[in-house]
Amino acid sequence: MLHNQEFVINAAGRKVPKIINGVPAVPYQGVGKYIPNAKKAAPPVCSSANYPLDGNKVVNDLKTALLKAGIRDGMTISTHHHFRDGDLVANVLFDVAAEIGVKNLRWFPSAAFPCHAPIIKHLESGVVQYIEGSMNGPLGDYCSAGKMRGLAVLRSHGGRYQAIQDGEVHVDIAVIAAPTADPFGNANGVTGPSACGLLGFALADAQYADRVIVVTDNLVDFPCYPWQIHGNLVDYVVKMDKIGEPSKIVSGTTEITKSPDRLLIAELAARFVAEAGIMKNGFSFQAGAGGTTLSFGIFLKELMQKAGVKARFVRGGSNKYLVQMLEEGLTDYILDGQTFDLDGIRSIRDNPRHITTSPFTSYNYHGKGNFASIVDVAVLGATEVDTNFNANVVTHSDGRLLHGIGGWQNCLFSKCTMLLFPSFRDRIPVIIDEVTTLTGPGELIDVIVTERGIAINPRRQDLLDALKTSSLPIRPINDIKNEIEDICGGKPARPEKGEKPVAVVKWVDGTILDTIWQVKDLRIEIK
Amino acid sequence: MLHNQEFVINAAGRKVPKIINGVPAVPYQGVGKYIPNAKKAAPPVCSSANYPLDGNKVVNDLKTALLKAGIRDGMTISTHHHFRDGDLVANVLFDVAAEIGVKNLRWFPSAAFPCHAPIIKHLESGVVQYIEGSMNGPLGDYCSAGKMRGLAVLRSHGGRYQAIQDGEVHVDIAVIAAPTADPFGNANGVTGPSACGLLGFALADAQYADRVIVVTDNLVDFPCYPWQIHGNLVDYVVKMDKIGEPSKIVSGTTEITKSPDRLLIAELAARFVAEAGIMKNGFSFQAGAGGTTLSFGIFLKELMQKAGVKARFVRGGSNKYLVQMLEEGLTDYILDGQTFDLDGIRSIRDNPRHITTSPFTSYNYHGKGNFASIVDVAVLGATEVDTNFNANVVTHSDGRLLHGIGGWQNCLFSKCTMLLFPSFRDRIPVIIDEVTTLTGPGELIDVIVTERGIAINPRRQDLLDALKTSSLPIRPINDIKNEIEDICGGKPARPEKGEKPVAVVKWVDGTILDTIWQVKDLRIEIK
Repeated sequence: MLHNQEFVINAAGRKVPKIINGVPAVPYQGVGKYIPNAKKAAPPVCSSANYPLDGNKVVNDLKTALLKAGIRDGMTISTHHHFRDGDLVANVLFDVAAEIGVKNLRWFPSAAFPCHAPIIKHLESGVVQYIEGSMNGPLGDYCSAGKMRGLAVLRSHGGRYQAIQDGEVHVDIAVIAAPTADPFGNANGVTGPSACGLLGFALADAQYADRVIVVTDNLVDFPCYPWQIHGNLVDYVVKMDKIGEPSKIVSGTTEITKSPDRLLIAELAARFVAEAGIMKNGFSFQAGAGGTTLSFGIFLKELMQKAGVKARFVRGGSNKYLVQMLEEGLTDYILDGQTFDLDGIRSIRDNPRHITTSPFTSYNYHGKGNFASIVDVAVLGATEVDTNFNANVVTHSDGRLLHGIGGWQNCLFSKCTMLLFPSFRDRIPVIIDEVTTLTGPGELIDVIVTERGIAINPRRQDLLDALKTSSLPIRPINDIKNEIEDICGGKPARPEKGEKPVAVVKWVDGTILDTIWQVKDLRIEIK
Repeated sequence: MLHNQEFVINAAGRKVPKIINGVPAVPYQGVGKYIPNAKKAAPPVCSSANYPLDGNKVVNDLKTALLKAGIRDGMTISTHHHFRDGDLVANVLFDVAAEIGVKNLRWFPSAAFPCHAPIIKHLESGVVQYIEGSMNGPLGDYCSAGKMRGLAVLRSHGGRYQAIQDGEVHVDIAVIAAPTADPFGNANGVTGPSACGLLGFALADAQYADRVIVVTDNLVDFPCYPWQIHGNLVDYVVKMDKIGEPSKIVSGTTEITKSPDRLLIAELAARFVAEAGIMKNGFSFQAGAGGTTLSFGIFLKELMQKAGVKARFVRGGSNKYLVQMLEEGLTDYILDGQTFDLDGIRSIRDNPRHITTSPFTSYNYHGKGNFASIVDVAVLGATEVDTNFNANVVTHSDGRLLHGIGGWQNCLFSKCTMLLFPSFRDRIPVIIDEVTTLTGPGELIDVIVTERGIAINPRRQDLLDALKTSSLPIRPINDIKNEIEDICGGKPARPEKGEKPVAVVKWVDGTILDTIWQVKDLRIEIK
């Protein structure tokens, strides 16, 4: 069915479907070009007359809550991914749905992880029709193999908020796993045995879903504060023995890279930020959680200390290195979207300058601005980049869908966006003629940093001027590309794309940026 | 025009208009009886493409902001009342509107105060067609005299949130005066020369208005935190020299009553709460800011200390006495809706257990429950009460509209609602046959406390049983009424009601509870 649908070439030159899961889609029109003339989604008006006056919304178990919420065939059920690979709720949720006997659900997670592989059996049996959300690991392979009975839709964190806010995705029932909650449904992620720090990825779900179920393993007396989720939006509260695997929710340690190449990349990037004049009193930065970008932060911190520079704010995902910066007075604030380690959780719980943000404040493109574009420099990764600075972050060069977009697309709007990556992986060049999947338009990517040099996007004459006399290895992107091809023995082989689309990549405004195609002969294991 | 419209008798037996300012209205149907089948208001979808990427939304002045916001004839402009009688923004706002030359605006404040008397000239000239919101003092008299070209609509704090949320009132432009803000529009009330503590009364306006203007006299670098108002909802930011008169925003002192009668009422009420078994570990209470209810809190505190009882939370309006309770460990939390003195502001700024709430969390009846009904005991005032415990809080016995509803209606949903009042004022009995204006249905009012005794609503057999052996002066309400009439020389004279409605009182669900009628021969001064 899917491969018979019609396609259109969008403004990025990519072939994208006109219809996605039965609903007409808007092809990508360029950065800032698509301005919708629409109203936000309008959830039903509720009445306190239908809720317990004493505020006690606790019901016996998840099955009771789902039945009371009116679960039925074809509904959209959402979950969040703050527990990452330690989530214990989504699998139970769909086991219960199977037990109830409903079919053809759309699972709308903010992201799915390898721990969710058991949901493949519900995809096979038809309890779940398809997944709409980032899929890491086995579910990504299941999708890449063309096994899912529906097109996956990949969105950024901001795009997911936008999609719910704009009514593009209507959530029937949101199931929000919360490390601490009270019987009224106020909930947070900062305390309890399954503490994850924040619950921002579930915010849009709480605000716009028809029915909201909070599941917790740490039920406290009203009021549970902070109320990252407002009980005024919650229908039912369920107590479970254990909602997350603490050791997998946060690692407890955050590893910086030991690779000499990656350390070099991180150092070059930090020096670039300093020499470009971005690193000055009151500046701001956001760096990802990977080993290279983590090391970038450590190098930058040293440069800041040496120069006596203090940041106004740094954006999290937080980790112990950002927390150290805050505690040592190198930044006024951490504006955090998710915590990556135990230091991050401790800090966001106890330090009033470690501030909770959400996809609404930070990333939603369909708001009256957002924080991402205020950030002076964002340091991110990529799986592939082309010579026009277009980048891929969701598929590998073999075409397999293996990563979510996360906040990556949203962060591209920073005043200076830098992509840090090794110039080749497994002897496959990373700078190529055309990216397998377009995830970020080149016009928003200002600088790439590899161990073989730094390339500045020609659109950024201001940066080229600022670095004119720098001793940094600043080179045209084609020079770096040619050098890599010499080393690797030519251009990389391109994956043979199947003819069947398996997923689409949305841009931050809800338009369709690219299509991900079935990978031929991909062997997957169904547990 | 208005007095030709048709009326209907509602479920409380009150004559109410069928049409209010051209829009059909739903008559009151009883507590918890009106369950709307509707969707919430849907504000326009915005795009960050239309907002400055660097987050700087500052424009030159309020006139520029209003023009950019597209102000035009007939629009609804909202403001909040956190500055109370010290507000300096609303008057300037309508002066600017007059200068621009727009007409027939609807002013939708969360409340108006005596300081807003200058707006009467804009009502006279037609810049403002009418006011929809609580009117204290001169504007109340202007309305009572039948001078306003439109029907005033009085709502509780929760009812105002409900009305905006449900789309009953569409705000075109919200003007939010904020003691501290950043150029992106993040704003709060806790710091700056015009600090008022919170900005919750402007929350619905920020969430649902088409255009939002933040006005501040304390512009700080991004991020202004806490962001009680999210910059993501703000269109323009304006810097003014002075937005509030600090001495009138918070009094700096909160006076307890010195009247022996009122002290007796407060003491009786506190003893009642203790003897009824409400005052136990983990309980909660809310008391108004008047002298009598303030003294109630002080008496209750003594009883709590004596009994070794600790509250889970107390609800503000906060003042130094509540702050003392928090600091002395007599309550885990203050859940605050507005701060009434400088101690309240200091505490909400510095103490993480002094928590910001809003009409959304605390009072909105069209949510999935709210905090008000979770409170164990609410202690409030009244201008009149009848023998069925129906109460009035907006008009005096002469029929003049002089007070707003505030959170009063919302608080009636507490587990035990007590009204404290002197049995007569100026030799006019307060317990009467029929209240001038019905503001609260008697079925929600559990206890009245006067200096001549305590009456328990016969619906509350549990309370009657609990106090059976008490030494407190518990009497049938008719006994107290008869005694007062003996003292005052009979029943009070009833005001001669005009035939023209000047305002309606809405119930928490948006239905029409009662009508306020023109007061004949009321002399008012127009400045």
